[in-house]
Amino acid sequence: MLNFTTAGESHGKCLVVIVTGFPAGVHLDESDINADLKRRQGGYGRGGRMQIESDKVCILSGTRKNITIGSPICLQIENKDYKIDILPDVTRPRPGHADLPGIIKFGNRDARNILERASARETAARVAAGALTKILLAKFDINVLGYVKSIGGVNSKKTIKNPDEIFRNRNKSKVYCLDKLAESKMIEKIKKARKEGDSLGGVIEIVAFGVPPGLGSHAQWNLRLDGILAGALMSIQGIKGVEIGLGFDFSKKFGSQVHDEIFYCEDKGSFGRVTNNAGGIEGGITNGEVVIARAAMKPIPTLMKPLRSVDIITKKPESASTERSDVCAVPAVSVVGESVMAFEIARCFMEKFGGDSIGEVTRNYEGYLGQIRVI
Amino acid sequence: MLNFTTAGESHGKCLVVIVTGFPAGVHLDESDINADLKRRQGGYGRGGRMQIESDKVCILSGTRKNITIGSPICLQIENKDYKIDILPDVTRPRPGHADLPGIIKFGNRDARNILERASARETAARVAAGALTKILLAKFDINVLGYVKSIGGVNSKKTIKNPDEIFRNRNKSKVYCLDKLAESKMIEKIKKARKEGDSLGGVIEIVAFGVPPGLGSHAQWNLRLDGILAGALMSIQGIKGVEIGLGFDFSKKFGSQVHDEIFYCEDKGSFGRVTNNAGGIEGGITNGEVVIARAAMKPIPTLMKPLRSVDIITKKPESASTERSDVCAVPAVSVVGESVMAFEIARCFMEKFGGDSIGEVTRNYEGYLGQIRVI
Amino acid sequence: MLNFTTAGESHGKCLVVIVTGFPAGVHLDESDINADLKRRQGGYGRGGRMQIESDKVCILSGTRKNITIGSPICLQIENKDYKIDILPDVTRPRPGHADLPGIIKFGNRDARNILERASARETAARVAAGALTKILLAKFDINVLGYVKSIGGVNSKKTIKNPDEIFRNRNKSKVYCLDKLAESKMIEKIKKARKEGDSLGGVIEIVAFGVPPGLGSHAQWNLRLDGILAGALMSIQGIKGVEIGLGFDFSKKFGSQVHDEIFYCEDKGSFGRVTNNAGGIEGGITNGEVVIARAAMKPIPTLMKPLRSVDIITKKPESASTERSDVCAVPAVSVVGESVMAFEIARCFMEKFGGDSIGEVTRNYEGYLGQIRVI
Amino acid sequence: MLNFTTAGESHGKCLVVIVTGFPAGVHLDESDINADLKRRQGGYGRGGRMQIESDKVCILSGTRKNITIGSPICLQIENKDYKIDILPDVTRPRPGHADLPGIIKFGNRDARNILERASARETAARVAAGALTKILLAKFDINVLGYVKSIGGVNSKKTIKNPDEIFRNRNKSKVYCLDKLAESKMIEKIKKARKEGDSLGGVIEIVAFGVPPGLGSHAQWNLRLDGILAGALMSIQGIKGVEIGLGFDFSKKFGSQVHDEIFYCEDKGSFGRVTNNAGGIEGGITNGEVVIARAAMKPIPTLMKPLRSVDIITKKPESASTERSDVCAVPAVSVVGESVMAFEIARCFMEKFGGDSIGEVTRNYEGYLGQIRVI
Repeated sequence: MLNFTTAGESHGKCLVVIVTGFPAGVHLDESDINADLKRRQGGYGRGGRMQIESDKVCILSGTRKNITIGSPICLQIENKDYKIDILPDVTRPRPGHADLPGIIKFGNRDARNILERASARETAARVAAGALTKILLAKFDINVLGYVKSIGGVNSKKTIKNPDEIFRNRNKSKVYCLDKLAESKMIEKIKKARKEGDSLGGVIEIVAFGVPPGLGSHAQWNLRLDGILAGALMSIQGIKGVEIGLGFDFSKKFGSQVHDEIFYCEDKGSFGRVTNNAGGIEGGITNGEVVIARAAMKPIPTLMKPLRSVDIITKKPESASTERSDVCAVPAVSVVGESVMAFEIARCFMEKFGGDSIGEVTRNYEGYLGQIRVI
Repeated sequence: MLNFTTAGESHGKCLVVIVTGFPAGVHLDESDINADLKRRQGGYGRGGRMQIESDKVCILSGTRKNITIGSPICLQIENKDYKIDILPDVTRPRPGHADLPGIIKFGNRDARNILERASARETAARVAAGALTKILLAKFDINVLGYVKSIGGVNSKKTIKNPDEIFRNRNKSKVYCLDKLAESKMIEKIKKARKEGDSLGGVIEIVAFGVPPGLGSHAQWNLRLDGILAGALMSIQGIKGVEIGLGFDFSKKFGSQVHDEIFYCEDKGSFGRVTNNAGGIEGGITNGEVVIARAAMKPIPTLMKPLRSVDIITKKPESASTERSDVCAVPAVSVVGESVMAFEIARCFMEKFGGDSIGEVTRNYEGYLGQIRVI
Repeated sequence: MLNFTTAGESHGKCLVVIVTGFPAGVHLDESDINADLKRRQGGYGRGGRMQIESDKVCILSGTRKNITIGSPICLQIENKDYKIDILPDVTRPRPGHADLPGIIKFGNRDARNILERASARETAARVAAGALTKILLAKFDINVLGYVKSIGGVNSKKTIKNPDEIFRNRNKSKVYCLDKLAESKMIEKIKKARKEGDSLGGVIEIVAFGVPPGLGSHAQWNLRLDGILAGALMSIQGIKGVEIGLGFDFSKKFGSQVHDEIFYCEDKGSFGRVTNNAGGIEGGITNGEVVIARAAMKPIPTLMKPLRSVDIITKKPESASTERSDVCAVPAVSVVGESVMAFEIARCFMEKFGGDSIGEVTRNYEGYLGQIRVI
Repeated sequence: MLNFTTAGESHGKCLVVIVTGFPAGVHLDESDINADLKRRQGGYGRGGRMQIESDKVCILSGTRKNITIGSPICLQIENKDYKIDILPDVTRPRPGHADLPGIIKFGNRDARNILERASARETAARVAAGALTKILLAKFDINVLGYVKSIGGVNSKKTIKNPDEIFRNRNKSKVYCLDKLAESKMIEKIKKARKEGDSLGGVIEIVAFGVPPGLGSHAQWNLRLDGILAGALMSIQGIKGVEIGLGFDFSKKFGSQVHDEIFYCEDKGSFGRVTNNAGGIEGGITNGEVVIARAAMKPIPTLMKPLRSVDIITKKPESASTERSDVCAVPAVSVVGESVMAFEIARCFMEKFGGDSIGEVTRNYEGYLGQIRVI
């Protein structure tokens, strides 16, 4: 089964991810992975760390002459800022971070031992794994794109239905949103937050084009694709809310207003919809429409104007510790969200279609497309 | 590891769930499980099926003289309305259900084969499993409660902090909400929907009291409790959005406004918070505050005034099929949400504390509570 | 993924198994499953319990009109001898059983709570699950057969290469061995053991015909088919040794004597071997030859002439408790071994070929067979 | 849960293993790991590769100041002989290796793509992971030791019951056996095989001292420790047979001769045995006696005097390809067997006792030891 495990601390030697179950015969271009790593590091609102690091992936295993051979793929991203052993203890836990629950859980008195792994730096490894699966999905014309919908309450209302246009607009934007007007307001808001030693969250949206109907399953609760995507997105550092399609707005409407009626298109020889409130998933299974998810990020909990905390040792009130940090990482999180969603879609894809080599996967997939056409 | 697998169709012989990894030595009272099953069947807005069924659990294995013995616990709920083999084919898929994606996935032309398992009737098995874990959690004074926050846009704004009061208010309410005023408006709205052959969704909230700090882990993405809870909640039939604590509202605020500052309470000898915007989870780990999650349910997709669809065989436009259904199942879903959240908290609890018998689990847990006190 | 979970105690209400990931569209004939259940109950050397039980499977879920629909398949086998709640405590643990380690593990003083689940009665559920997968494998002309090689040191030396002949010979034998001469000697030995209140073990062999090359994987340790089969076989109650192909005899030979040289058969257009010392698996992957495994069973630990033990309560020396038991269950275990091996081969088969319906699995499989032919 | 995943090819950049679920607070000494890596590389009978490599572990993550912090531990072993991209294709598959089944499975025509991962070089990563868990187990006085029982039919009959003596004798032996006399005969046999371009297998034995009763479980087939150990051992490259305790010899005896009678030792206040034919496991659960397993290794399939094979491209008969290889790797495999057995025992240990930090694990463990004493 396609799967991944990450390792590595924020100021450790490196981040590592092992991806298992990736089919043989796929040409891997490191530059594809590096492009996503770079995008994760960018976006208006990042702090000083991102000027130190310039993430590049090193493929440690799983390929020969740049072609995958079916063995586990190990990707490594070095930390230029490796100094975990000499960094000072952190005894004033930062509200909103794993600091306090972590030291309680592990029974020690130094939150450094927690925050080094809890840090969102780990998401670089997830982005690398996601980039791998985007290379795979691209072979089947599946295209997963993440972008920013809002920052600190400033909303981008623009909706674009064409993936190439989404790609272009997003990549032109300093905050990875699709909407020039919103972009400048978002930047203003981030500037304000920075000036005040404060931080901001926002909302990201991820869309997946070209996903065939039939991924995920209604047959057991933990096979439903909506649950799988929600679990993956909510597990990203800072994410506190997830929705599919209309999401929470579903709860306010009548059924007759929201369900996507079914039509048959004789030209294409397939069923289709005019609306897509379901966000491409019904009953935990993709229905052939664009898969749409959104996730809400809380403001970065590390504040230059720190919140009240307590010293673990003395138990006296103190300002929370400050680590070098971002003011707003919502653009970065849109890359992480894209990555984890790509991974989970690829996982379900591989589970349905099986196959050890790209040739076998492709043959199985095309057989299925043929089956769909004659339903 | 504590785990469960369900089986059973809506009009099959029965629903079954096997729960593995449940500790030995726990007295199981079927009436506790039956109370939750009954609550799942109730709530204003349910349809005719619930008058046929009167769910009772039968413990098929895992106990001797009503005490668990460490073997898998198999729970069975019979379907009075068993007729799967004689029910007619369904060829006009209902928008919003698994009907269409399911028949495409499985390559057949009868959505009956899909909807029988995709049906929310399956949640009876999840409620039974959740009720089991509530019995376990109660031994550690952990209390998980679900209730309704809104139906069709009618919001209950009442906030209650006391679990017993939540329990009482909720159980007195026909729609399982905490707020008498909202209740009557919700019922009005449901009546309106029923009259019009329509359906309604809503929002549920689940709160877990008494959860110790340190459940879940920041160490790997799929161990983070927020991701685990989101995955479990989003996997419930009809759920399209999930949030923890402030959820989507986090995205609009400054960091200084939302993170829960840390204080030290000398009397209790423990760290604490005044606010709980994080919903009890920071960095994927419980922090000792009340765990709070909300989930948004879409309106039931089966409408008495059916939506447009297509006949699978003829490819001609037709009204969608109608199955006997509810107008609003948000109260029922609050029970399901409570159940799955209880299960996942119990799973993380057992993973942290280990132990084969309730005595061993308790000893380990109490040792940990002692450890916390002297941090 | 194809998987199964069992529940149920020896004298509980029933045994239950849930099989997940079984493809849709397969006609299930209960009589196929019942035939294996009956075979498991038979074989010369069984005790009194098998005269009480006459196992019949009841399909509780997963089918409609006897055809699988992709949902979990729940199989139930009722215990006629249901009396777990009234059976007496067992305080004199039987050497060789889980009795003593179980009560220590679970911290109680009544081995009844352990032995009810540890009992080999549980294997009836595994046989049912295995029989399901044999129905699936038969669609791809894969045929898994278990039989007895030796009992109490009496060896059957007959080797048969034709599956139909194996099937016939075995089914004619009272001890499920292929060899008339050995059969009568085995029966003599069992009679002797019974007369002396003693018990016997033996060796079973399981062969799988028609398994395609390419199941299992060298890519990660826990994907290797030999490891998977060894784990499954050793997990059967009473099994203490497992070997593949030549097994332990490999350790005594030179490499030049034992590895199966490779030839190319122009007629068949495929690679092949003259010998099969590897037992059909090289590098953890099937090579297209017959898969061959053997497993050694220890003598039944419940003796009518009981061994020395200690009373858990008094700590005084006592004879071990006696439960109604068999003298020799090696024939029965050959059925269980066949079942678990069928299940694991089917699991790897489904993992490689994917697919939700039998049509999709078949299309993928046939595509692979075509790929092999043109290598 | 304690788990591991390996990556890396024989002539790739490096081998990598990520170990998850390892408790915090354990001091890691690289030299402990390196000692096992070195031992794996040694033993009379190894070939030229081992003169090139001198394996040293690099801890890439999971520690701070040499203490584990609860995050995943990533261990890397560099390959000095990194040249995977320039090594020639292998088109004459070697009988006994994954070469032929691998290329069929993956649909390519170059066995290099298979053998690079299938190679036993991968076991260096498993030894590193096992060494980690040996450090953990040592904190609980659990000591796992592997040694050689036979090579090419030359048996060491010496039995030693004292772990320190086993350690000393084994470490003095060039073939890691306990018996000076057998050692010299084994070396003779290896010399003979080398001279003839042949290879040899053998049998290893692994014993685990100090394992508490109660690890593993009878409650579900895949939790039984004997199955888990057999799966792990059989998954080692070259292993074709596994047995626990008396193993296959059980099959020849009467029950009265082989089961380990139970006694109560008032001095120690615990139950015990005089014999240990069960090899420390009854009903899938450890019983407090020494855990004993043996595994049979086939002769190395790469022969300097190559076997007959076929060229994949031309389909003409050819001698099998020759890779640089060992004559006998049984001593090395005894280290691998020790490592995987240590890992699996540690996995079950952590599952039973839970805990995030070594302090918590220890407290839970000691609580259990107290519970046992008063049974």
